[in-house]
Amino acid sequence: MAPKKGLLQRLDEGVVIGDGGFVFALEKRGYVKAGPWTPEATVQYPDAVRGLHREFLRAGSDVMQAFTFYASDDKLSNRGNESSAKYTCRGINDAACRLAREVAEEGDGLVAGGLSQTPTYLSGMSKADTQKEFQKQVDVFVENKVDFLIAEYFEHVEEMEWAIESCLKSGLPVVASMCIGPEGDLHGITVEECAVRMAKAGAHVVGINCHFDPFVTLEGLKKMKAALDAAGLKVHLIAQPLAFHTPDAQKQGFIDLPEFPFGLEPRICTRWDMHRYAREAYDLGVRYIGGCCGFEAYHIRAVAEELAKERGKLPAGSEKHEQWAGGLRMHTKPWVRARAGRQYWENLRPSSGRPFSAAMSKPDAWGVTAGDASLKQKKDATTEEELTNLAKSCKVANGK
Amino acid sequence: MAPKKGLLQRLDEGVVIGDGGFVFALEKRGYVKAGPWTPEATVQYPDAVRGLHREFLRAGSDVMQAFTFYASDDKLSNRGNESSAKYTCRGINDAACRLAREVAEEGDGLVAGGLSQTPTYLSGMSKADTQKEFQKQVDVFVENKVDFLIAEYFEHVEEMEWAIESCLKSGLPVVASMCIGPEGDLHGITVEECAVRMAKAGAHVVGINCHFDPFVTLEGLKKMKAALDAAGLKVHLIAQPLAFHTPDAQKQGFIDLPEFPFGLEPRICTRWDMHRYAREAYDLGVRYIGGCCGFEAYHIRAVAEELAKERGKLPAGSEKHEQWAGGLRMHTKPWVRARAGRQYWENLRPSSGRPFSAAMSKPDAWGVTAGDASLKQKKDATTEEELTNLAKSCKVANGK
Amino acid sequence: MAPKKGLLQRLDEGVVIGDGGFVFALEKRGYVKAGPWTPEATVQYPDAVRGLHREFLRAGSDVMQAFTFYASDDKLSNRGNESSAKYTCRGINDAACRLAREVAEEGDGLVAGGLSQTPTYLSGMSKADTQKEFQKQVDVFVENKVDFLIAEYFEHVEEMEWAIESCLKSGLPVVASMCIGPEGDLHGITVEECAVRMAKAGAHVVGINCHFDPFVTLEGLKKMKAALDAAGLKVHLIAQPLAFHTPDAQKQGFIDLPEFPFGLEPRICTRWDMHRYAREAYDLGVRYIGGCCGFEAYHIRAVAEELAKERGKLPAGSEKHEQWAGGLRMHTKPWVRARAGRQYWENLRPSSGRPFSAAMSKPDAWGVTAGDASLKQKKDATTEEELTNLAKSCKVANGK
Amino acid sequence: MAPKKGLLQRLDEGVVIGDGGFVFALEKRGYVKAGPWTPEATVQYPDAVRGLHREFLRAGSDVMQAFTFYASDDKLSNRGNESSAKYTCRGINDAACRLAREVAEEGDGLVAGGLSQTPTYLSGMSKADTQKEFQKQVDVFVENKVDFLIAEYFEHVEEMEWAIESCLKSGLPVVASMCIGPEGDLHGITVEECAVRMAKAGAHVVGINCHFDPFVTLEGLKKMKAALDAAGLKVHLIAQPLAFHTPDAQKQGFIDLPEFPFGLEPRICTRWDMHRYAREAYDLGVRYIGGCCGFEAYHIRAVAEELAKERGKLPAGSEKHEQWAGGLRMHTKPWVRARAGRQYWENLRPSSGRPFSAAMSKPDAWGVTAGDASLKQKKDATTEEELTNLAKSCKVANGK
Repeated sequence: MAPKKGLLQRLDEGVVIGDGGFVFALEKRGYVKAGPWTPEATVQYPDAVRGLHREFLRAGSDVMQAFTFYASDDKLSNRGNESSAKYTCRGINDAACRLAREVAEEGDGLVAGGLSQTPTYLSGMSKADTQKEFQKQVDVFVENKVDFLIAEYFEHVEEMEWAIESCLKSGLPVVASMCIGPEGDLHGITVEECAVRMAKAGAHVVGINCHFDPFVTLEGLKKMKAALDAAGLKVHLIAQPLAFHTPDAQKQGFIDLPEFPFGLEPRICTRWDMHRYAREAYDLGVRYIGGCCGFEAYHIRAVAEELAKERGKLPAGSEKHEQWAGGLRMHTKPWVRARAGRQYWENLRPSSGRPFSAAMSKPDAWGVTAGDASLKQKKDATTEEELTNLAKSCKVANGK
Repeated sequence: MAPKKGLLQRLDEGVVIGDGGFVFALEKRGYVKAGPWTPEATVQYPDAVRGLHREFLRAGSDVMQAFTFYASDDKLSNRGNESSAKYTCRGINDAACRLAREVAEEGDGLVAGGLSQTPTYLSGMSKADTQKEFQKQVDVFVENKVDFLIAEYFEHVEEMEWAIESCLKSGLPVVASMCIGPEGDLHGITVEECAVRMAKAGAHVVGINCHFDPFVTLEGLKKMKAALDAAGLKVHLIAQPLAFHTPDAQKQGFIDLPEFPFGLEPRICTRWDMHRYAREAYDLGVRYIGGCCGFEAYHIRAVAEELAKERGKLPAGSEKHEQWAGGLRMHTKPWVRARAGRQYWENLRPSSGRPFSAAMSKPDAWGVTAGDASLKQKKDATTEEELTNLAKSCKVANGK
Repeated sequence: MAPKKGLLQRLDEGVVIGDGGFVFALEKRGYVKAGPWTPEATVQYPDAVRGLHREFLRAGSDVMQAFTFYASDDKLSNRGNESSAKYTCRGINDAACRLAREVAEEGDGLVAGGLSQTPTYLSGMSKADTQKEFQKQVDVFVENKVDFLIAEYFEHVEEMEWAIESCLKSGLPVVASMCIGPEGDLHGITVEECAVRMAKAGAHVVGINCHFDPFVTLEGLKKMKAALDAAGLKVHLIAQPLAFHTPDAQKQGFIDLPEFPFGLEPRICTRWDMHRYAREAYDLGVRYIGGCCGFEAYHIRAVAEELAKERGKLPAGSEKHEQWAGGLRMHTKPWVRARAGRQYWENLRPSSGRPFSAAMSKPDAWGVTAGDASLKQKKDATTEEELTNLAKSCKVANGK
Repeated sequence: MAPKKGLLQRLDEGVVIGDGGFVFALEKRGYVKAGPWTPEATVQYPDAVRGLHREFLRAGSDVMQAFTFYASDDKLSNRGNESSAKYTCRGINDAACRLAREVAEEGDGLVAGGLSQTPTYLSGMSKADTQKEFQKQVDVFVENKVDFLIAEYFEHVEEMEWAIESCLKSGLPVVASMCIGPEGDLHGITVEECAVRMAKAGAHVVGINCHFDPFVTLEGLKKMKAALDAAGLKVHLIAQPLAFHTPDAQKQGFIDLPEFPFGLEPRICTRWDMHRYAREAYDLGVRYIGGCCGFEAYHIRAVAEELAKERGKLPAGSEKHEQWAGGLRMHTKPWVRARAGRQYWENLRPSSGRPFSAAMSKPDAWGVTAGDASLKQKKDATTEEELTNLAKSCKVANGK
């Protein structure tokens, strides 16, 4: 049996489809807590994590990204979180790798280990302190022989550079992906400069994940590509956007929107949005195409179906989904059978059923960034008094 | 160990929380095909079905409804579906019962077997033909010793009466739930009369499921209750609505909306909508409170959290969800911590991020009903020619 | 020369087109003050009032309604208004009649004198006190030999009955029109009973004006017609609705909507809405078809164009408006010329250009009615303290 | 008596408030025909034109702009228009000047003569041909001793330069205003270059009118200002935007929007939008602040009220309008009295009452420009065949 092809070879030869978001999907299923968003479910509910990996594999994902989001030790013990003590950073990351490996081997999937930004950095602590947090995760990834590393969900390119440096020590391919939009990072660095700095720091693949919808994300990637080309830097591009429409988000992305995180439903993208996303990403030259929060298996399947010709295959999951709504030919009602075609779904502008809601929201836009007192790491839980003070600053609660 | 309490005793003593929708959830996960919507996944992908049952159990569901929707033999072989031949009606229903039983026993859950309307009836065939289809499913349910039967998703009260008759032969409690709104059934029978006829036919619990959002559904139930009271009929009430907003749907419900079934995302209810639903249902006197298509575990958990006091307990899943967004106290960003409270979420009217979409849609409203030629059962797949003719009648495809 | 045909003869023979709203149109032009809404402009700015009458005559109005809205003595001196002292009730009403007469004689128009509800009644005073206010206006109307009287904009059928009684003494035909919707008057009297009571009180024409959009108004008229038919009462029907969309208004109509009166722009009806209104009103049997607040000349012209066949003529104003946008054939841009036809405008669902606004509003719904302390007549202006207390009760100001 | 101050002195010393749009206002009143939009009403209905001038004077306008829009000889005879033959170019322009003069002298107003783009230029004809059309209007303006000239509503800066050249021969101050947005003119010249070329051509005041809403227009003016500053050109700035919200318009402005011209109602700006506009325009350094299509007297009054402190006075029309809704203190209903204040109206996001409409529209965006065959001048009316062909190209009519 031939050895599995690696990430970079696959990207050189064609498209790699990523997976979708674990924290939002598992929150809805009851296995992740919104707020801390940490992945102790890998230890507590391995069946649920494994099941979600399988959905993505079946939908066409080429990568099983170990569920290690926010699994750094400092985050696992921030603001009253007891996961670090109960399950340990090592235990959570290790379980995550083993679950990803198990499902990857059911197909031809790659296993990736992932790092994200740290409370340590946001608290204004040193490079050494921050990299210490990264190293604890990288050690586990190396022991588990993951295929490559992803440093993703960074809001500041400076911390990203430190993360890339930590990852490169592993000798594995490194993907670097920031949660920024066309306006750049939270310290005012342009999206173009972020791309160039990530490439110069040694990342093999650079791009954007989370915080913005597919189309805003691709605007950012277009700028990244132009800057990388201008600088003569040869790296691959990755896009892993939200599956929520965010035309109204500002610099901080969907975190600022009043709907975050428990009122985002009306913003959820349809599968047809994802067809358009996959095509536009591919045409722009992005070759690692996946998703982040809100992306479920059917969104990834839509990406895989749109790129079926380029990939030379349909995903396993298309067994239950004929292209462009073809399955509706089997519907009982004749007018639903009439919807079994591409033109219908491409032209539909779906209604919300919410006549008292607007199309767009004004973001909170507090604009605080790394170093601000309110962002500092804090082991104790938020007190009632702190909460009352926060509420006074909240626009929606005050009807603004 | 004390024997499990039965459905009717539980309803007499308090609230019974149902589960959510399997076909829509499993379609998104890749295990059900939209169009036929039939449940052969119970044989093909038992882990996926079991996993979804567990999510609902953990969210607070008191009932594990075997995944037997549209699992009548005639539906499993309609319009090109080969499930009947491959997996057999008996095989699918039997597997469904065993999966539901397995998970129910992980808690204190009841197991229900479910019947739905048949292509046989829609094709205008006889009572005997139709009941023959029902009987095949009931036989399996009885063999599997389910706790009660649910006849649900009926658009015509006449067929429902036949189903109740078939179910009653089992000697088990019978729940009867139609997919109708305040305007009544598709043959023009009022919602009030539907309620009375279901009760008179012998159903122990009557009500409404699917087709309409929680609030439209409760309008229908309010009318049912008044009619039952006026007729002096003592039965319990059940509500299992959609988790999609449908203020604009007409008689046929969400099937008529242009967004059905692949563009419904902007209509998905939030967890806060479900708090309101649970409270209003309870206050109206409904005691069997669950959900249908679109209802995921977090929606059921919201119902269970709203009724925590009435039930004397929180669901297991609340381990990962503090009441009224309390978990946001652990969020990194201060303005998200400011959202950790009830007032914020009750006042939010969430935006869609879709400025080119309207709030409401004009339903297709073809208005065909049982007996119409276009509804007749047909084993062969829909042809291209039939599809072209259907598309000509489609308003959205023609920009109306 | 044959004498002018009277109102009732015209209604027996065909359609009578009313005029539009004076207070809103003249407020925008700078001649009426929003708040008191009283018509002293008839004395102060006769050219402006005359000009508006001419616009309506040219647009097809068969009636020049003297601009005497809210011109009762008590209203002219309520809450700091000095119009009663400066211009006198008699002076204002007299000038109004003469201006209407002058323009009516430029065509074949009828002149109507109008009465409305009084602060005296809202303050809970007696029938005698209230009718004293009416009588002062009726006296001027009779002296000016108006062709008929309109008692309009009444929220309580009891006061309306008193007004009809006062009007009938003049010996002139009496039109009685309440500002109510399908839910009935503010004291809880159904719309059906209101119609019957107006007819029994002796009004020759009964119906609805103001407060609701054309389509909500016609819902109310449909109920009125059914009740009048059931009671065997033969009277003509009048509709003079708003030109603002109000699907979300409750009992009190647009006064309750948060947009009243200075943010109603996005609700303004198009001319195409008025084609539909005219047709539906005519088909329902309404024969006096006009408008109220928001109705401008082009809205009335649309009514007249829709009913051109029934009336056997187009209005003079159609000189500048070819039917169904025909004039666009002369537009410079080819794609605007492409819009010169009925199908385009009937299918258009016009956008608001306001992505941060919702489609519908929650009304204030204070629910106070005649007799409530806050409605009592008061000659002094509202104080700052009173205003501060009111603002505390205001939902929009408090972000609800 | 001191002689009236001229335009440039007034702009040097403070703010000059323009007037609003005549063609849209008079179309609604029945005196202008949509399509050709030509101003023969100055001869036919002088009272109506005079009345509108008076409304603007009263609202605070410092300029009475003679109603000579599209009054060039070629436009008056384009596509079936017989105005040139019936009323003559000279007659229409002359009457317009005399009406403006008459009303200006009722206050301290300036009189301006206005020129616009010509069918001659759009047909691809020569500079000499085009300037011949301009000269016919300028001659009448000079004879009537207008105070200054406005060359406005030009889509191509080349034609604008020709117009400025023609205007400068009069020896009068020249205002040059293009109907473009931030994307620049229809031949692809940037908005920055347009500003510089207008200033270099000798215009004393340069800016933007029509086609876009106040806020999009100010985006364009901001770019103009930066370019003029960079080029060291000292000219005054003018803004005369639409009173319709157009965030979704592309290069061609509101002409492209599907709602143009008979479905724009939901886009109409409120008076509070105009407060914001006036403040932002003033803060940007614009000193000639007026309006175009959709601007009615109450919009101009709002500009004048916002700038009352800067101008040292309120307009006459504020007699009927207390600042920030103060007049509502005199309203009958207590909850409307509660709206008598700035905070209420600044925070309101008004609803449309149209749940089946979206917030934004997709423009037609045909993208044809000067020289295109479909834009050529043509004396004969558009034929049915031409119209049928146009309709086939129309997206809205085809449900796109």
